Amino acid sequence: MSETRTEIASLGEFGLIQRLSQGFEATLPDTVKGIGDDTAVIDLGHEYGLLTTDLLLEGVHFDLTFSPLRHLGYKAIAVNVSDIAAMNGTPGQVTVSLAISNRFSVEALEDLYAGIKAACADFRVDLVGGDTSSSRSGLLISVSVFGKVAKEKIAYRATARPNDLLCVTGDLGGAYLGLQVLEREKQVYLANPGMQPQLKGNEYIIQRQLKPEARMDVVYELDEAGVIPTSMIDVSDGMASDLLHICSQSGVGAMVFEENLPIDEQVYLAATELNLSPLTAAMNGGEDYELLFTIRQADYDKIKNNPKVSVIGYITDQPDVVQLTSKGGNKVPITAQGWNHFS
Amino acid sequence: MSETRTEIASLGEFGLIQRLSQGFEATLPDTVKGIGDDTAVIDLGHEYGLLTTDLLLEGVHFDLTFSPLRHLGYKAIAVNVSDIAAMNGTPGQVTVSLAISNRFSVEALEDLYAGIKAACADFRVDLVGGDTSSSRSGLLISVSVFGKVAKEKIAYRATARPNDLLCVTGDLGGAYLGLQVLEREKQVYLANPGMQPQLKGNEYIIQRQLKPEARMDVVYELDEAGVIPTSMIDVSDGMASDLLHICSQSGVGAMVFEENLPIDEQVYLAATELNLSPLTAAMNGGEDYELLFTIRQADYDKIKNNPKVSVIGYITDQPDVVQLTSKGGNKVPITAQGWNHFS
Repeated sequence: MSETRTEIASLGEFGLIQRLSQGFEATLPDTVKGIGDDTAVIDLGHEYGLLTTDLLLEGVHFDLTFSPLRHLGYKAIAVNVSDIAAMNGTPGQVTVSLAISNRFSVEALEDLYAGIKAACADFRVDLVGGDTSSSRSGLLISVSVFGKVAKEKIAYRATARPNDLLCVTGDLGGAYLGLQVLEREKQVYLANPGMQPQLKGNEYIIQRQLKPEARMDVVYELDEAGVIPTSMIDVSDGMASDLLHICSQSGVGAMVFEENLPIDEQVYLAATELNLSPLTAAMNGGEDYELLFTIRQADYDKIKNNPKVSVIGYITDQPDVVQLTSKGGNKVPITAQGWNHFS
Repeated sequence: MSETRTEIASLGEFGLIQRLSQGFEATLPDTVKGIGDDTAVIDLGHEYGLLTTDLLLEGVHFDLTFSPLRHLGYKAIAVNVSDIAAMNGTPGQVTVSLAISNRFSVEALEDLYAGIKAACADFRVDLVGGDTSSSRSGLLISVSVFGKVAKEKIAYRATARPNDLLCVTGDLGGAYLGLQVLEREKQVYLANPGMQPQLKGNEYIIQRQLKPEARMDVVYELDEAGVIPTSMIDVSDGMASDLLHICSQSGVGAMVFEENLPIDEQVYLAATELNLSPLTAAMNGGEDYELLFTIRQADYDKIKNNPKVSVIGYITDQPDVVQLTSKGGNKVPITAQGWNHFS
């Protein structure tokens, strides 16, 4: 054991991963891409294999006070499939490892698995393995997904080009505000267990938090339209943070227009009620699991009539100059305020 | 939530997995094998892909009182590579997800990663991804490995045939007795923190517990010798339990000869000292991560001079009649007493 003690919190999640993964160079001829994109990329000969994994921990990533186990099972699969979608790939096989304390009954786990099964059906993936262990504290779910993509169709983070159009699927900020509503109702409930939670009018944003979808539908639609994104990432840490990943890895900048950001009416209403900024929720909220991607201008006609896709800006040739044009016409720098589980 | 409450402990680990995985049929054309073997098998066109995952939890699978983090990192990779070896495959890409409480320093995690790095080098695999989260209690490591195998060389559990020879690599029971020695010294230390642990003479079995190897060396040697095992599994739950998996899945029986079991001298000595049966340790100890496999009798000449391989018995045509011929000539049924983390 070394004598210095550096606290994990002093590095943050990205800094820690960066420090720990130092010196791990890929050595195998079939490792096409290691750490640094939504999935690893493996050469399979005629096509690429995609491998991704995610860990969900009770008390860190979810709160069973308001997360039904069925939704949690669905979400565990969806967030991993979302990483395959972000490579423009098709998911195939899934493994699920569980660690569970004896406070859970077999019936509770069957609810969790009902959600896993629903997600497997929706995203057309097969559960092919896993592991079940006891845990001394709470529930933990580790999911891995293997997928495939044609070599000429893969979409990395690092390949956005100046003048590409910046697009996002669905809408932004809902998952974050859904969480705020759920947290508020939890506090109300803890203070007064007799109270019924006030969730009416917030159904959509609560679903965005508890049961997010992976946008495989858009991956298939872009393919049918003949569009290969020039770069892509899924919105997990927050749109701003994820856009900064694309820009820094591609060596480009970006301009985003506030008026083009897709924000649902419920996000505005909940933001007003909770005294939060809907713009901050959309830019930094995270967990929307939408796809943020760039396309060639020449492909605009192929996506302009797709109601699931919004063009929110464009890519520039100024490395790391990433800005928002506000509704008032001001240009403000976009900074990352994504999740840091260690802070 | 259902109204009945069934306790997880009433089903056990295998029963629980069986119940939860009900109704998960493979639906994709490239899913060759789902749950039920050492790894999942995915059709890649010219060859098969292999996917496996394992979860290691502090307090359940390891005890940091006596597991150095460096060895733990090594073991986390080795036990997963062992599953790829058990399919007669070659490991390629590895993902590592960590959950850590803030009691760990960055330097401690660097020790863990030094072990992961050493294992990646030894087994020639690339670390290609993962995830780092905070945990409210202790350390948790989730590893997934992707590997490949030529279609004609894959070794399943379900394909042993009557009259095949039953073989095992290395020796058995060491990891279990290593754990017993470590547990004893922990109790001594807890009772009297001034005492130095008495590990002398037990170095080999302690290493077997703390830093097991995946037997990729034997996989490569069998390949060079032109031997394709007719069935294979790795010894993780205990040789008896793992042999029963081969027999029940293959619809065959087996005869094992006690006198042929490879047991190291340190296992005999430690067993005597601890008043345990060396035979029980070898048959039911678990965590040896050796390979248990069957070969055609015609291949005997190709393995007979390999000092790493012992022929311990043969396969019979009597389904589920799995027996041990003792040194005294008695035939006794072999039963599973593998690990059950829920008991």
